[in-house]
Amino acid sequence: MVNSLDSDYYESEDPVWNPALLTIPVPGIRKMVNLAATMNDVIHLSIGQPDIPAPPHVMNATIDALQAGQSGYTMDAGLPELLDALADYYGYRSGRPLTPDNIIVTTGATEAIFLALQAMSAPGREFIVPDPSFMLYTPLIRMNGGIVHSIPLRAENGYQLDPQEVIDAMGPNTHAIVLNSPSNPTGTLYPRSTIEAIVEEAAFRGIYVISDEVYDHLIYDDQEYPSVLSCCSDLDHVMVISSFSKTFSMAGMRIGWMIASQGHIKKLRRFHMFTTTVANTPCQWGGVAALLQRELSDNFIKGMLEEYTKRRDRLVELVNQTPHLTGYKPEGAFYLFPSLPAGVNGTNVALRMLKETGVCTIAGDTFGDALSNAIRISYSTSLDNIEEAFARIIPWMKEQDFG
Amino acid sequence: MVNSLDSDYYESEDPVWNPALLTIPVPGIRKMVNLAATMNDVIHLSIGQPDIPAPPHVMNATIDALQAGQSGYTMDAGLPELLDALADYYGYRSGRPLTPDNIIVTTGATEAIFLALQAMSAPGREFIVPDPSFMLYTPLIRMNGGIVHSIPLRAENGYQLDPQEVIDAMGPNTHAIVLNSPSNPTGTLYPRSTIEAIVEEAAFRGIYVISDEVYDHLIYDDQEYPSVLSCCSDLDHVMVISSFSKTFSMAGMRIGWMIASQGHIKKLRRFHMFTTTVANTPCQWGGVAALLQRELSDNFIKGMLEEYTKRRDRLVELVNQTPHLTGYKPEGAFYLFPSLPAGVNGTNVALRMLKETGVCTIAGDTFGDALSNAIRISYSTSLDNIEEAFARIIPWMKEQDFG
Repeated sequence: MVNSLDSDYYESEDPVWNPALLTIPVPGIRKMVNLAATMNDVIHLSIGQPDIPAPPHVMNATIDALQAGQSGYTMDAGLPELLDALADYYGYRSGRPLTPDNIIVTTGATEAIFLALQAMSAPGREFIVPDPSFMLYTPLIRMNGGIVHSIPLRAENGYQLDPQEVIDAMGPNTHAIVLNSPSNPTGTLYPRSTIEAIVEEAAFRGIYVISDEVYDHLIYDDQEYPSVLSCCSDLDHVMVISSFSKTFSMAGMRIGWMIASQGHIKKLRRFHMFTTTVANTPCQWGGVAALLQRELSDNFIKGMLEEYTKRRDRLVELVNQTPHLTGYKPEGAFYLFPSLPAGVNGTNVALRMLKETGVCTIAGDTFGDALSNAIRISYSTSLDNIEEAFARIIPWMKEQDFG
Repeated sequence: MVNSLDSDYYESEDPVWNPALLTIPVPGIRKMVNLAATMNDVIHLSIGQPDIPAPPHVMNATIDALQAGQSGYTMDAGLPELLDALADYYGYRSGRPLTPDNIIVTTGATEAIFLALQAMSAPGREFIVPDPSFMLYTPLIRMNGGIVHSIPLRAENGYQLDPQEVIDAMGPNTHAIVLNSPSNPTGTLYPRSTIEAIVEEAAFRGIYVISDEVYDHLIYDDQEYPSVLSCCSDLDHVMVISSFSKTFSMAGMRIGWMIASQGHIKKLRRFHMFTTTVANTPCQWGGVAALLQRELSDNFIKGMLEEYTKRRDRLVELVNQTPHLTGYKPEGAFYLFPSLPAGVNGTNVALRMLKETGVCTIAGDTFGDALSNAIRISYSTSLDNIEEAFARIIPWMKEQDFG
């Protein structure tokens, strides 16, 4: 069954395409979700987008824009009102003056990551990327001939990134470092000291830092969020990416952005005209409301954090009660990345668990090479679903013998 | 002044970027529009999107989707309801059975063009592209090392493409041909005989045809629209791209698509996950309404064509009355690409005309190398604006001496 599933996803090299497309892997998430779609009574702990409804003030502002006939293009870089609101908001948060020229609005954070990595990667250039990490980075680097230098993260450290390991990995060909805190798939939040040490050494060596901060508002236990923007002296070597998707449950509305130096933004605005032209106009108006109607937005975020915190705390307990799984307490995002015993194949376990219990998780090797004995559990689903999922997982795990 | 404007847009190679980005040119349209933004009393004949409001049934369906909480991701390839509606609609139009697996929904036609050209181009591969053409194609081909083989079009033929010239240009390294009918910037509609001759020879030689059909509903004088989809035997070597942007005045809602073989679509769906993840969800619902509420849509298109036809007819008269300009009667889109006398620099004329009369057009060299003595005039603006623009242009042209 594993083999037949794989063959479903197998593709030989087709001469129509540039062989560079071979860097795009079989999509591990889609594989599980598609198998789940053929089954009844599946509980998804596999979801990568918020399950909480988007706040009414954001939806209403988008509707107002449509009713006002806002169906045409904005300027290349984005709606001026959104650029202004983002400049003010990030200026306030980072204590650093920013102008609209420091910002480009994109089709979700994905397009911003795509623009940055495609525009920077070239044969021979090395990129430092933690492993595991979100599956977008490595293929986009390799597609243009760049080389990925992985920094393996360790479960026993809660997947924290050791800044000294990053600094030791920097070499004469290192072009950039990709950071993602809080992390998908681990939920790990890097402390200010980690970010500062990496950013400072990178600045000293002329290495760029690309920081994917899409989970920057999903931070639990009242911890501070150290954005790269508040940990650097100059903007000239950092590119900070985020979006409304996770903070405001707007993943399908596809509004993200990058903040960087004016020179870098100017170049990426041009590239952006060739990838997607501009971002969605009515949903950019929704984004303006998200940033300007602060009290409503702050209340929404507060409620969301209370809900996710409850789920996280219960999930951590349940994982601790599960035979063969070793957890930890993630500080952000809505993921936990528990380990199976060393040497156990997480892909096989995730597939068998889906088939035998109906609980859909994502295998660890979707996110890199270092941790094939892990699985990603998303708690972007109700507490009831989480309880029911573990009512199935715990007895199933008891029966397993990984010896 | 020309020089100071150019220096504004000059950029040295920055070592942060892959030098491949040097293939992206100075944006000729943006240059004119930005200069115009510093002036008072400008009439824009430079617009590349419809000026007619989007139809209420499309806007209302988008609003309904937002009110129903549709703010999350769709499936990778697009909203299933939209894929179904597109398969039915194109199946009906082309007389060819299509399934949702033949379609990917993208962030406007731009992303579909980007996916196709980036995924196909590679060093040494040759692409046949008419000149002038929409400015997206050439940079995207060259960015990945592909070679552009231009077919110069001639004003005296109304910018028709001679299929024999295309066939003569096909060589052992020809990978694909890019077609765009009706054309931006010329408004030229290729007859069925042209499309069939090119597609048939391409099929015979294993050459791909990428057809940008975004103006496929802006066809005047009740002419038939020969889509590449209705001119090919098999789908395995064609990729047909379109969008709702021009047909339904939805450019800012960013919903486009590609229709191709299932194998090609499968590969591009994966690439798409790495460029933008998915297209905008609520606006895909707007697209479903555009396709399914046929009577409302057909009436909208009928009214739009009546309006654009009036404008085109008057514009053709006015260009004929203008000294030094030679026009023709375009069959589609909302552009006319009249010529200045041979050897006259259209960029200089367009800039001086903007500065001295306040009428903003786009210089011909924005669209290629062959026709630097042309300017693009868009009639996506009111008849009153067109009249007022030529009330300024005609006396100004009388004063010019291009001898």
